This record gives sequence, structure tokens and C-alpha cells, in this order.
Amino acid sequence: MQIAVLTFDGFNEIDSFVAAHILNRLRPQGWRAFITSPDAVITSANEVVVHAERPLEFAAEADAVIIGSGLKTSEIAENRELLERIRLDPTRQLIGSQCSGALLLAKLGLLEGRPACTDLRTKKWVVESGVAVIDQPFYAEGNVATAGGCLASQYLATWIMLRAGSREHAKAALQLVTPVGQQADYIARAIGVVEPYLPPTTIAPAA
Amino acid sequence: MQIAVLTFDGFNEIDSFVAAHILNRLRPQGWRAFITSPDAVITSANEVVVHAERPLEFAAEADAVIIGSGLKTSEIAENRELLERIRLDPTRQLIGSQCSGALLLAKLGLLEGRPACTDLRTKKWVVESGVAVIDQPFYAEGNVATAGGCLASQYLATWIMLRAGSREHAKAALQLVTPVGQQADYIARAIGVVEPYLPPTTIAPAA
Repeated sequence: MQIAVLTFDGFNEIDSFVAAHILNRLRPQGWRAFITSPDAVITSANEVVVHAERPLEFAAEADAVIIGSGLKTSEIAENRELLERIRLDPTRQLIGSQCSGALLLAKLGLLEGRPACTDLRTKKWVVESGVAVIDQPFYAEGNVATAGGCLASQYLATWIMLRAGSREHAKAALQLVTPVGQQADYIARAIGVVEPYLPPTTIAPAA
Repeated sequence: MQIAVLTFDGFNEIDSFVAAHILNRLRPQGWRAFITSPDAVITSANEVVVHAERPLEFAAEADAVIIGSGLKTSEIAENRELLERIRLDPTRQLIGSQCSGALLLAKLGLLEGRPACTDLRTKKWVVESGVAVIDQPFYAEGNVATAGGCLASQYLATWIMLRAGSREHAKAALQLVTPVGQQADYIARAIGVVEPYLPPTTIAPAA
């Protein structure tokens, strides 16, 4: 599993790093999440300078793509040249957005006919783009998910682990990153938030 | 409020960035948290290259200091020259550690006679250094706190906001970073985890 965490200048540190870190807990299983950006060097919302690990074009090759959030998403959403460089395929990739990343998913035509989650500040832009916003932390339909509120990034990571890994993978990774003594609560909540949006599996017949 | 988030080569991205980001939500109130490091450029546990915002010596001037976690903490704990550059004063500063950062607090003599929280992997080193480890996400005594499990970094940030700001500051910042639709639960839990360790305030007499 190669995962692109799309991260633009002005990015929200929690949104990109929480998901990337959790997914990288599965490196022993061959997973790898990369900070992926159109710029070689980017500056976060709080002015931390970070080097991108992969160029924007890596998103087309990745097995899963998370679109992070940041201060400049509304500008990026109007930059056709940049949007055209983000080549995503929801028939083959798992694609998720965090907070204002939903605006880019909307502009890329990936939210048509479905509601989305986003942060409180981005909500009006997503609604203006023609997408209904729901007041919950996570929503997914098929291979496209949206999450709202920085720390909901743990749910986006959980969704990717449950879709492309297993419940055991997800639990093992979450066990290592959740608060000591509260792991069981955090894991149950993360799986509980994501589970209603997993594809139906074979249901054992009623006895 | 100037806050130093001590961040060393091999650092855990969640541990440094979640606390720094939450505390920076109070920038409109004059707060500022900085990635603070002995090296100008550091590489995270998952190989993300980040530029430090402040040198290690900034810790001595800061109003609050968080010692982050990482892959190399046990090496740093044996590096006397480096430890001597970390000048902390618990009579004047709020000081907290995240995960393996507890080992550095122990080496700096700041955990004497008190238990500490840390992550599952660091536990044995902290115990070997003579400090009892407790199986909970957060503990504080006076001006020194410890947290265990990456996402417990939200509790460390909450403690600093409650100690040096106000309940309103803490709630406002947490409202912006917690999952949409779950903010009230997250805020109540974060305050509930930290509150038993706040200094006693004037209690209104019983009616």
C-alpha cells in the first residue's frame, strides 16, 4: 500500500501528519504514507517548513490518496492548472479528504450526488460548490470518503486500514497511537465511526 | 505565552505537531508554540524533513515546554552535553513530556518522587531510571506533567491552556480541532482527564 497525503503550502499540521503517522504504523506490513506536494518545500499554517517526500504526480500511482487541508485550499480550488495535475481514479484508488480537502474533491467531480464532511470554516464553500455538508466526522460511499475536524484524520486512516488491510491491522496501529489506558475506547469509537460506510460483506444467514 | 515543543531527530510527528497545532490555535490571544530543536533540520520517525523554528536554548526562555518523543530518546538520555543545554525551571515554567519525553524529564531530575505516564515501549527505560510508570494517559503534579500515547498530546495541550489560559480558551481551541459532531465529547474528556491535576482553586462554601 502506497499512500499519498496531499499537502499544500499553508497546510494544517494535524490533518496531514496524524493520518500519515497512523498509516505508517503499518510499515512492517509494507505500507507507506508520503507527504505529497506540488512544491518541494512547503510551509505549514503555523509556519513550519517541511520538505515534500513525493511530487503531486505520485497521487496518480498511489493505492490511496488523502487530500489534506490548509489555509490556501480555496485558492487551489480555483487553480485549474494545479487541479489538472491531481489525477485520481476512484475505481482503483481509495480517496479521502480531510477538512477543506473536500473542496478539492468537489472541484475534481468526486463528490457528485453525495454528501460530504468538512470543517466549520470550509462548509460554506463546499455548499456553494453544490455539495451537501453533513454535521458528522466521517462519511464514505464506495471508494471516496470525507472527514471533518482535524482529529477526525484518525478516522480517515482507520477507513483506509479497514478497507485495504484488516481489522487486526487497524487495531494494532491504533493501539500504538491512542492515549494509554484509553486505547479500547478510542479503537471502538474509530471503528464504530467508519464501519457503517464499509462495503457490505457476506452476511451469515440467520440461524 | 511562548511555548517550546522540543523535537529531536527521529521525532514522532503526532507527538510534536498535535500539541503545537492546538496551542497555536490561541495565536489570536498572543500564544505561540514553536518546533524547538538542537538541530536546524530534523528528520521525523517516518523520514519527513522539517526545519526547526527555534534552537534548543529557547526552552530556557519559554513560558511552557513540551518534550516530544522519538526513536532516539534513549540515545539523547545518555548525551550529557545535550541534556545540559536543556535548561528548565519548574518554579517558573509549565513543563510536560509526551511519550518517551518522560525519559528526558527523568534524566533532568524533574520526576523525582512522582509517577509518570509514557508510551508502552519507553516504559521499561523510565522504570529503570527509578520512576514509577502509571497506566493512564496523563498525570501532573505542580508544574510538571507527563502524557502517554501519541494522541494524549491533546491532553498536554489542554493542560497548558487550562493552567496558563482559561477554560474558555481551552474549549475554543479544542472546538476547532476535534471531530465535527463529536466536539462536546472530546472537550469533556480532555478537560476531565486534566482537571484532577490542576492546582486547587478557591472552592465556594457549601450553601
